Amino acid sequence: MALKYAVLGLLLERRGYGYDLMQRLESRLGPAWQLNPSTVYAALDQLERAEMIVGLAPEPSEPQPRPTRRIRRVVYEATEEGARAFDRWIADLSWRQEPIRGELQLKVATARAEDVPSLLAAIDHAELVTAALYEECRAAQAEAERDSRGPAGALNHSAAVLRLEGEMSWLREIRASLSERPPRPEGRRGRFAQPSRG
Amino acid sequence: MALKYAVLGLLLERRGYGYDLMQRLESRLGPAWQLNPSTVYAALDQLERAEMIVGLAPEPSEPQPRPTRRIRRVVYEATEEGARAFDRWIADLSWRQEPIRGELQLKVATARAEDVPSLLAAIDHAELVTAALYEECRAAQAEAERDSRGPAGALNHSAAVLRLEGEMSWLREIRASLSERPPRPEGRRGRFAQPSRG
Repeated sequence: MALKYAVLGLLLERRGYGYDLMQRLESRLGPAWQLNPSTVYAALDQLERAEMIVGLAPEPSEPQPRPTRRIRRVVYEATEEGARAFDRWIADLSWRQEPIRGELQLKVATARAEDVPSLLAAIDHAELVTAALYEECRAAQAEAERDSRGPAGALNHSAAVLRLEGEMSWLREIRASLSERPPRPEGRRGRFAQPSRG
Repeated sequence: MALKYAVLGLLLERRGYGYDLMQRLESRLGPAWQLNPSTVYAALDQLERAEMIVGLAPEPSEPQPRPTRRIRRVVYEATEEGARAFDRWIADLSWRQEPIRGELQLKVATARAEDVPSLLAAIDHAELVTAALYEECRAAQAEAERDSRGPAGALNHSAAVLRLEGEMSWLREIRASLSERPPRPEGRRGRFAQPSRG
């Protein structure tokens, strides 16, 4: 799981406790990532077992957010082994392109002429959902640019922004292509096989 | 699993056996999908159990590819229940945007100034891998355009093509941004925590 190295990277910048790391990672990765908080805690467990980080008892001087909570938060810090592991991860070249898959591609690939109205409704819906997420990602990117850290600035946010721009272009293309076609008469359906029952 | 509906859609066009459906789906979805053949067979099992398709004993007139193989292939055909399920799937609006996640985003989000050379090497590698897949996808798209089926033509292939164009732009942006920065002196590393041993 690559996410653990990102958590480690945040700890190499400065120590932190779980919830703080989750928030830093969420703002760093943006809304399109859909970060699941439990994966951050799982990453901390893994990193600690691998001795790439250690959990420290909080010092009395350590600012304790929400001091009313009964459990004192464990503050984590990276180890030298963690620093080496992070360097190896950044330099690792085993990256492969993830599969590009989506339910809408399946619909577009298999829709028949009589499915065009339903497919157009699905495209409309997807355009609304995608445009809303796009606005969120642009806002997160703008915020990250103001508060830019790291040598690549806020460019990690561009990954989602460019991806969503591509998806919106695709949806527009499909809609244009489907709208150009004159409505066809309802296709005559063939006879269907009957399931054998016993 | 949405893939089963795509398999069903192919069977609504014409009957077919497993390997034939796998090949039709692979050419329909293109190389970026990275179709796993076992998912097609799993989809056929699910569809058959749900009585959306039936397996037919091949007729003697049925062309039998590779007749030397001992097992005669089961030919599948969609049922009327299958046709209704396909219509419902096309019209279904519960689509949500999938998370946008990638290991390179994590690297870009957490790299430090001293990681720039390693990060640039990772970007170079990703550019080569992505460009090669992009060429494959363009070729698959061109072939699909010649042999276009369905009301949206070969536009399902554009999803991958546009996605990869977005990724290539992103990689170029990162490289430009990292190359602009003057090399920094090696950052002074802080002291690291030591894992407690027993």
